[in-house]
Amino acid sequence: MSLRHTRAANYPDWYQEIITVADMAENAASPGCMVIKPWGYGIWESIRNTLDNMFAATGHENYYFPMFIPLHFFQKEADHVEGFAKEMALVTHSKLRQNDEGKLIPDGELEEPLVVRPTSETIIADAFSKWIVSYRDLPVLLNQWANVVRWEMRPRLFLRTREFLWQEGHTAHATAEEAEAETMQMLEVYRSLAEDYMAMPVLVGRKPEHEKFPGAVNTFSIEAMMQDGKALQAGTSHFLGQNFAKSANVTFCNSDGQQEYAYTTSWGVSTRLIGGLIMTHADDEGMNTPPRIAPWQVVIVPMVKNSEEKAEIMNYIGKITSALSAKTAFGEKIRVKVDARNKESVDMYWSWARKGVPLIIEVGKRDVDSGKIMMKIRNRINTKEAKQILPFDEAIAAVPALLEQVQKDMFEKAKKRLYDNIRTDIKTLDDLRKLFEAKNSFIAEGETSKPAFVLAKWSGDETATVPVLKEMGLTMRNYPVNMQDGKEGTCIFTGKPAVDNIIISRAY
Amino acid sequence: MSLRHTRAANYPDWYQEIITVADMAENAASPGCMVIKPWGYGIWESIRNTLDNMFAATGHENYYFPMFIPLHFFQKEADHVEGFAKEMALVTHSKLRQNDEGKLIPDGELEEPLVVRPTSETIIADAFSKWIVSYRDLPVLLNQWANVVRWEMRPRLFLRTREFLWQEGHTAHATAEEAEAETMQMLEVYRSLAEDYMAMPVLVGRKPEHEKFPGAVNTFSIEAMMQDGKALQAGTSHFLGQNFAKSANVTFCNSDGQQEYAYTTSWGVSTRLIGGLIMTHADDEGMNTPPRIAPWQVVIVPMVKNSEEKAEIMNYIGKITSALSAKTAFGEKIRVKVDARNKESVDMYWSWARKGVPLIIEVGKRDVDSGKIMMKIRNRINTKEAKQILPFDEAIAAVPALLEQVQKDMFEKAKKRLYDNIRTDIKTLDDLRKLFEAKNSFIAEGETSKPAFVLAKWSGDETATVPVLKEMGLTMRNYPVNMQDGKEGTCIFTGKPAVDNIIISRAY
Repeated sequence: MSLRHTRAANYPDWYQEIITVADMAENAASPGCMVIKPWGYGIWESIRNTLDNMFAATGHENYYFPMFIPLHFFQKEADHVEGFAKEMALVTHSKLRQNDEGKLIPDGELEEPLVVRPTSETIIADAFSKWIVSYRDLPVLLNQWANVVRWEMRPRLFLRTREFLWQEGHTAHATAEEAEAETMQMLEVYRSLAEDYMAMPVLVGRKPEHEKFPGAVNTFSIEAMMQDGKALQAGTSHFLGQNFAKSANVTFCNSDGQQEYAYTTSWGVSTRLIGGLIMTHADDEGMNTPPRIAPWQVVIVPMVKNSEEKAEIMNYIGKITSALSAKTAFGEKIRVKVDARNKESVDMYWSWARKGVPLIIEVGKRDVDSGKIMMKIRNRINTKEAKQILPFDEAIAAVPALLEQVQKDMFEKAKKRLYDNIRTDIKTLDDLRKLFEAKNSFIAEGETSKPAFVLAKWSGDETATVPVLKEMGLTMRNYPVNMQDGKEGTCIFTGKPAVDNIIISRAY
Repeated sequence: MSLRHTRAANYPDWYQEIITVADMAENAASPGCMVIKPWGYGIWESIRNTLDNMFAATGHENYYFPMFIPLHFFQKEADHVEGFAKEMALVTHSKLRQNDEGKLIPDGELEEPLVVRPTSETIIADAFSKWIVSYRDLPVLLNQWANVVRWEMRPRLFLRTREFLWQEGHTAHATAEEAEAETMQMLEVYRSLAEDYMAMPVLVGRKPEHEKFPGAVNTFSIEAMMQDGKALQAGTSHFLGQNFAKSANVTFCNSDGQQEYAYTTSWGVSTRLIGGLIMTHADDEGMNTPPRIAPWQVVIVPMVKNSEEKAEIMNYIGKITSALSAKTAFGEKIRVKVDARNKESVDMYWSWARKGVPLIIEVGKRDVDSGKIMMKIRNRINTKEAKQILPFDEAIAAVPALLEQVQKDMFEKAKKRLYDNIRTDIKTLDDLRKLFEAKNSFIAEGETSKPAFVLAKWSGDETATVPVLKEMGLTMRNYPVNMQDGKEGTCIFTGKPAVDNIIISRAY
């Protein structure tokens, strides 16, 4: 049962096909928007639950702010509006009426248009300005789960849709140091989400000036490498300094009795992460979902040949389910589902295999009679270890460690691909041009010479660099913190002395 | 520490004050919208978790559909657009630009305006029309958690805001019977949420014709009585028949090989429920949150008089917290929070009492020395049972039953108020006029004669009734299923024979 597209033959169509066969999302009737379906939404709920725990553990509370932002709020922050002006949805009317031809048309024009939030710094800073009076009110540590809108002209499921779901954290602090520490703490939360839960290795670092969030002093990101060597920015954390505090007049009385502007941060991840998850783990058989965030970790499929054996098989499945539900993996109850649909077993098996359910247990009469359990391990598909048949008790006991091993294997494999494909031998603009003459394409296991990431010395001279990057279709991702050597070398763009290492690549 | 307003003296201002002192929400910078704050949002998260479990147990899965609906979708369903046309937010532009005076103005007019969803029947029926081919694809059982917009002209926190949060379930079935059974099943889910979790008693029943959802065949609701005797519609479940299926062409091939239109349902509850929760349980001391949906069921407040005793007190609190966290109430782990803010103990106590935290434990040096625990029971405030001082082990052991008792007491009290204030002795229009000459006002415990609910025979003659109701400022709530006697009587509006009993009241 092959897919129509492979990663090697047609990577973009393969991505689209994975989303279809795993039934994760589809294009909606509204242009550029998506319908997120249960497997995609379930992954998003796992991400939400994971982050909510981490946000609470670091002292943050959930709020909800309105999605409509009065237009004049954007007038205040010049950089910010510059960054978003071309992709804002505007509500201008509050009614419908029928015209003479019976056609519905907008009516009730608003005095002031409302912006559908592309992000909420402006309206949250405005709330901060009312809430914060004294240093005793600080820090304010909040998060919200919300939908946001950016008017993308080339939408793609999960990666770039006009409406998407995200969380946005917003905090206010008395000192720059504290706000900077918060920025880094949340970056670490995102690294942990990506690596420890999504099994998606990332490079953690500061963005160059020209890639900063509009209005930020500094932006930090986690960057993942997709299977075609392109980068995907998977999360960002911004130190906003006093910029938004100044626009919205967020001041506080410090412990010396003086008025000061607060220091703010913001940080977010979105449903884009799911696109990253797909392009990190899916293969030519479908999606492959890391156990720790899989909505179902184990799915049990009955293989019923005739109605006589059905009761016996379902009874045996009941025993497996209760035995498994009492077990934990990753410190949480194992998430087990029985697929009781009245369909061909082989269709049921494949529908779950395409979704990348970590373990699929098929139960037929033979298993009931032998008292055994047959487990198919999605991440080992097409290998000799794809299947395990064990006696009941042994199988149940094996599941937690098996799920944890699969999680680990998935992370290690992706990590090897990432680090194998960060080129450090590209020293000149010519070498760079040569490497990126080829289009990005699927990087098979063991391949190391295709266009992917380049780690190079860069002087930070934006004027000299940005136009060249643009012309080459390349981007600078971040200065990865764990790949700095502090040594002076030669800037790949200007030939001038340079110390910092930056990642250069094509990107989603 | 009294509030400024009491229920008796100024009910509307009291409601507003409760939201402020419990810090649940506030008016946002966007007109008619609200900022939901952690205690309010935490209650919403409890409601979400409760319903998600119940939705999953009844076979529903979560999806996410776009919030923008192409305008022409509304052209198709005449009743539906009629019902919503006057309260729709419309997106007409996708960019901003600066005009000559440097002012930001909308730019990039869209070819077709987009409606910000007031509800999603139209766009979901459109998806159904693509997904459903054969009877084998049915039923489709889905839910989404989303923000929706209705352009309210008299907004009020939680009760009526332009943007609010809700869940909307949408299902499609092969037969009318199955869809009707689904409608009733979800109504029962809502009854259970309201009564078993929110301790808010409700009347379950069908809405009269003129109160139906625009486009529905039948609408059913749960109706709660607020402390001023007004009704609050707390949830609705709609049998849509084939209406939306016909507009969106949702057909399927039945088992006889014939094309049929599907039967659909929809059902929803919103953040309005939180308004209902407040007006069911809050009192003149602040909010009073039922334990089963309280974000924190127990809050521990250190009472530190000097820095020497602090470590000892915090250590003792640590012991209480771990002992309590190991306990369950209502089948779930007890939710405990320690308030470690560096504030006056009395301020901390009141900030939680105002939120209606069911149990507040104050820990001072004296408790550490005596090995006792002092618990303040919010629902018993101002009574002799408001406080319990018990030895450590006894106190810990008592908490689950205490929380369950408080939950029960809150429900019973509200239930008594409801049933004590359903008048069955109002038989004529004159009596009705006389009863409602008085404005609604706070109904104290034991009061039974204030304007509240009237249960009366009604012939169903809408033409004769609706104008009279309007003029009197009254509404018909529903035909409560558990208050029908099947006996013929006299219609309160027309004097004609009538069998069905309907609830008449003022309403939010």
